[in-house]
Amino acid sequence: MSVGVSPDLAAFLAAARDRVETALDTYLPRPPRAPAVLDASMRYSLLGGGKRFRPVLALAAADAVARGDEARVALALPAACALECIHTYSLIHDDLPAMDDDTLRRGRPTSHVVFGEGLAILAGDGLLTEAFALMAREPQGGGADLAARKLDAIAVLATAAGAIGMVGGQAIDLDGAGQVRHPDATAPPVFDAAALADMHARKTGALIRAAAEVGALMAGGSADEIAAVARYATHLGLAFQIVDDILDVEGEAATLGKTAGKDAAAHKPTYPALFGLERSRALAHEALDAALAALAAADLDRHLPALARWVVCRSS
Amino acid sequence: MSVGVSPDLAAFLAAARDRVETALDTYLPRPPRAPAVLDASMRYSLLGGGKRFRPVLALAAADAVARGDEARVALALPAACALECIHTYSLIHDDLPAMDDDTLRRGRPTSHVVFGEGLAILAGDGLLTEAFALMAREPQGGGADLAARKLDAIAVLATAAGAIGMVGGQAIDLDGAGQVRHPDATAPPVFDAAALADMHARKTGALIRAAAEVGALMAGGSADEIAAVARYATHLGLAFQIVDDILDVEGEAATLGKTAGKDAAAHKPTYPALFGLERSRALAHEALDAALAALAAADLDRHLPALARWVVCRSS
Repeated sequence: MSVGVSPDLAAFLAAARDRVETALDTYLPRPPRAPAVLDASMRYSLLGGGKRFRPVLALAAADAVARGDEARVALALPAACALECIHTYSLIHDDLPAMDDDTLRRGRPTSHVVFGEGLAILAGDGLLTEAFALMAREPQGGGADLAARKLDAIAVLATAAGAIGMVGGQAIDLDGAGQVRHPDATAPPVFDAAALADMHARKTGALIRAAAEVGALMAGGSADEIAAVARYATHLGLAFQIVDDILDVEGEAATLGKTAGKDAAAHKPTYPALFGLERSRALAHEALDAALAALAAADLDRHLPALARWVVCRSS
Repeated sequence: MSVGVSPDLAAFLAAARDRVETALDTYLPRPPRAPAVLDASMRYSLLGGGKRFRPVLALAAADAVARGDEARVALALPAACALECIHTYSLIHDDLPAMDDDTLRRGRPTSHVVFGEGLAILAGDGLLTEAFALMAREPQGGGADLAARKLDAIAVLATAAGAIGMVGGQAIDLDGAGQVRHPDATAPPVFDAAALADMHARKTGALIRAAAEVGALMAGGSADEIAAVARYATHLGLAFQIVDDILDVEGEAATLGKTAGKDAAAHKPTYPALFGLERSRALAHEALDAALAALAAADLDRHLPALARWVVCRSS
């Protein structure tokens, strides 16, 4: 069951999403520079709706450290769009028959259902690659300080999305589901609570943390501010994942826009399966409190506290 | 039939390959930061041999503009390694059942045969992502000028590898082979000579051109020098592709380390199929001449001319 958001947060979310939507459409290469068939598949998934949680979080973190200074917030827009490109690529690849084999995403048929498996793989590859092209190019100008921030942001995002982050988490998930061939005959891992937390910290948490971090970084936040939003987002990412697991158990396909109950059916480890629903809700609220404390310690607020509350209250 | 290389080029190639091999092993994240199973799959393909043509070309271009100044050449090593990560990811994904469905590569079973399809997709995703993490991080230090060059190199490489470059070329190839689903019922493209050239310019040419360009860029070449090695590499990339097509017709699996005759069997367009063997060889030599002329016009030489001759003479 979802709850309402405050008018202030709702306005911020709507404006941020519009901004990201428009910018994504502008930044992506168009035919004939990009082949029409590839362009169609990339835009189908990228511009096909979604909460835009990661780019919105990046802009909210930018807004928090910039105390609303619009010129500074705007510097984070390309990185926000790159985050959505990377998130979307990960969904396309995760949905493939060789991975989670999902046919429904964001309420529509998945990429490989529409375009075939080969082009779906390429659409993902294209979105991942364009994310870095975009971050290296934009925002233009700005001198040595901005160039240094752009390089730092690329390093943060690539590290979070790569082998020690998101891709690593997906590999652990796949391995735990028995979908990896082990040429050396080692056994797949068994998931306990610690392994579950590690997997989610990589698979979902790393990119959420990076979203807040690159937002604050590009908007010129201090080292302390960047560290504080990173701590906030680490707790928020955990809360986000627990809530997602709860919604998967409770939810309907219509609400989620994807096949519900799928994780449980695939014997994938989830928070409700390990801890039960009650305890899972309590864990999400503990994570929320820790996220808010991290902000308070650095004297940061603006939309970040309300955003965190909104994430957690999706499930209560 | 291969021909010998000059002792001077042979020594350069051997040293460059050793250097890339060692650096790749150092730069990749290790377990437990990267999950062991993902790390194994990434290293299996990345460190599994290969000509290392793109990184060697990057180092040769760096060496040419730096006139052998070792400190400047060393600045191009991370980008050279990133090129090999990107090339290797593209091979892993191209070999998947949903793409070319190859079981042999560089003389060994392909990634999905060894680790399963899901992990093969992730190994490719991981290598692509680590390429950008590496280029953003390394070489460290160096001030504003080096930071600007790193950003330029990331933009060049991501653009060449992305939707208007390599991924775009692979999409055209896949579409031409009838492996793309068209939801709007448009027909797949028909390959004539111009379409073939466009596909190869994207699929193979863009990354080869980028290799020379980022090598020269990172080593501090002038704008004219960077433009000259880019022109050289554009012609070289064409020659490389024609020779590859010829070898596919003539070659044996043992020489190529991959399944020979595969392109013809799949009715993929090739230069020999369109122009015949004789004319294809002549086209490769014309491209070689154009590559050498581009170097001469900018007064660049060192190992670049011999490297181009070596590429073309693989087939004569």
